[in-house]
Amino acid sequence: MVMSKTLQQIDRDLIHLLRERIALLKTSTPPPVDEQLDHVRSLLADANISEFTWQTLLVNCMAALATSPSLAMQMQSESRKITIVGGRGAMGRFWVDRLTAAGHAVSVLEYDGWNEADSLLGNADLVLIAVPLKSMVPVIRRVAPYLSPQTILADIASTKTEVMQAMLDSHTGPVVALHPMFGPGGTSFLGQKVVVCPGRYLPQSQWLLDAIEMDGGTLITCTPEEHDAMMVAVQAIRFFSNFSLGTFYAKEGVDIERSFEFSSPLYRSEINTISRLVAQDAALYVDILLASPERCEAIGRLVDTYAHLADLLNQGDRAALIAEFEKTRQSFQAGAGRSLSESNYMLNNLSSFLAAKTVEAAIANTPSPLQLDLQPELQPQALLSLDAAA
Amino acid sequence: MVMSKTLQQIDRDLIHLLRERIALLKTSTPPPVDEQLDHVRSLLADANISEFTWQTLLVNCMAALATSPSLAMQMQSESRKITIVGGRGAMGRFWVDRLTAAGHAVSVLEYDGWNEADSLLGNADLVLIAVPLKSMVPVIRRVAPYLSPQTILADIASTKTEVMQAMLDSHTGPVVALHPMFGPGGTSFLGQKVVVCPGRYLPQSQWLLDAIEMDGGTLITCTPEEHDAMMVAVQAIRFFSNFSLGTFYAKEGVDIERSFEFSSPLYRSEINTISRLVAQDAALYVDILLASPERCEAIGRLVDTYAHLADLLNQGDRAALIAEFEKTRQSFQAGAGRSLSESNYMLNNLSSFLAAKTVEAAIANTPSPLQLDLQPELQPQALLSLDAAA
Repeated sequence: MVMSKTLQQIDRDLIHLLRERIALLKTSTPPPVDEQLDHVRSLLADANISEFTWQTLLVNCMAALATSPSLAMQMQSESRKITIVGGRGAMGRFWVDRLTAAGHAVSVLEYDGWNEADSLLGNADLVLIAVPLKSMVPVIRRVAPYLSPQTILADIASTKTEVMQAMLDSHTGPVVALHPMFGPGGTSFLGQKVVVCPGRYLPQSQWLLDAIEMDGGTLITCTPEEHDAMMVAVQAIRFFSNFSLGTFYAKEGVDIERSFEFSSPLYRSEINTISRLVAQDAALYVDILLASPERCEAIGRLVDTYAHLADLLNQGDRAALIAEFEKTRQSFQAGAGRSLSESNYMLNNLSSFLAAKTVEAAIANTPSPLQLDLQPELQPQALLSLDAAA
Repeated sequence: MVMSKTLQQIDRDLIHLLRERIALLKTSTPPPVDEQLDHVRSLLADANISEFTWQTLLVNCMAALATSPSLAMQMQSESRKITIVGGRGAMGRFWVDRLTAAGHAVSVLEYDGWNEADSLLGNADLVLIAVPLKSMVPVIRRVAPYLSPQTILADIASTKTEVMQAMLDSHTGPVVALHPMFGPGGTSFLGQKVVVCPGRYLPQSQWLLDAIEMDGGTLITCTPEEHDAMMVAVQAIRFFSNFSLGTFYAKEGVDIERSFEFSSPLYRSEINTISRLVAQDAALYVDILLASPERCEAIGRLVDTYAHLADLLNQGDRAALIAEFEKTRQSFQAGAGRSLSESNYMLNNLSSFLAAKTVEAAIANTPSPLQLDLQPELQPQALLSLDAAA
């Protein structure tokens, strides 16, 4: 199974054409993907190429126009003195790395380094607290007395209201609270979101926010209260929900691989989400659930919702269930069309991915050249009619 | 915003090359997608084309080798006399349409047509019961006395154990139970799954199973008991879970659009799944939940799992939560790598889809040709480091 010379030549030609296509898109005002597709429908049919294959190519070409910021911008910033408290932790190391890469002089203060606190904290432009959530408030209180009124005090805690209050109470200078919406392991801010809660004298911290954006990050500004409310919905509820569902499947002893045979790609993608989340670090995950009383309370209300609907089921109260269902549908109505098109696109891609794996396996088992005639169950075009049983 | 002549020419050339590429794959034994990608990494880097863009192209080309069955096969079957009881319902119409297309003589018996029962049921080769689940057993009992011992009795109910028993008890001839794993609205069996539970004299029903496969369907054979157990996991549990989660978000008044700004594509895809499912027909959905006592019992155990984990949270029992988490992770371990690669692929495609939409919107707002310099938050390559906060 080697790449034939012909295939290699076709790939070179394709890449050359793709480069030309993307370059042309960048210097013109191309019509939307759907219109671009309309232009070649009959050509595709003649060539027996699925519209979905062409659509993904058009989508990826358009996406290539969302370029990363120019490197030149990253050189403009003046070098600052930064101390990261907890800078040897997983997230701390990331910030040390990125702020150093941006040209700043970055020091680390760890739990065993308080004898150096005077020099590390006393004349820093920025002190960033990157310790575990539980230690945030005590560390902020211990750090603050060392700071000059010009020093920016910042944190990266995953809940903001209480931590912000502690920073404002214990430091009289500039304060800004950050929450990177991603865990350790990344190599830059590219494609990542960082929530920014302004505390005090925000313009003083502009260079820090610029550094994040120049490294490819996106800033979301909000109050600590909005942040904490959103994190309940975005993190705690769905973490808990996937964790519980995974625990249920595990307890019931469901044969997951066999269950895929009975189901659509949508079920498969839901199982993949559970699998992805339970592969995370258990302690980090559990601490996110335990992070605040509000989270436990919201999870309590989620459990109540489950119990309420299960009660209606047990009573066989079909009318009440239908009424609840209609109400829920109503609240998702506004985004339903957008959701469906995104969902179809993802599921068609999953189907195509699985079909390609099936073809790879078939080729591996039958090394002589042949016209494959596999089951079409995984063909993406059939997915567009997914519905109730999906 | 028209397609320039140059763009049109590039697209024609690309389609021509893609056709050649797929034709070449079909007549050779191409290496796996990853190896094909390895061959051109440096070319892609030089051309500034993302590896992800090329990967999707390779995946879709490989998937194109999973061809649909040849039309010639569909002509072989002998024409049979078929009566579909409930043939004017949504699913009934689908079966009338597909079996007619396969060359059979298909009649319909509806609830108001029992005066024709003698002629419609008495000399049919196949009587297929396609009535709502609640009416299945009574209709089977009413139909059976009309049948000759040569007639195949079949059903398409979404639970199988009780219905199978009713068919075997009331008819002495061939019996086969089917469950199409999809709802109404499709145009053929292409890409769809149908569960087959053999009842009695299965070889007599082979022509029916062949007709489904020839139309592109995939058959999954199992016992009624395995079917019903799997449907609890594959349908009832996740329907209920998404329904409950959607109801919770609705009750809490979470601003879904705003919440997307605070989150990763993974959260977005989970919301899309909820939105997709609650857009279904409420009655159909609720009846699937109510279909059997086993479903209500399993949902009861799911609610218990939720309540148990929420109790541990309320008690702040971090150690017990971590232990539960580790146990759950263990049970998903075997498929974790596969799940992650499928999940990454889907999320990267979603990111690319969203980035393309952003570019389309930017173009619509700035009609003059320009070098776009959009935020890179949606670039797919950054997604590969998704983790705890994802």
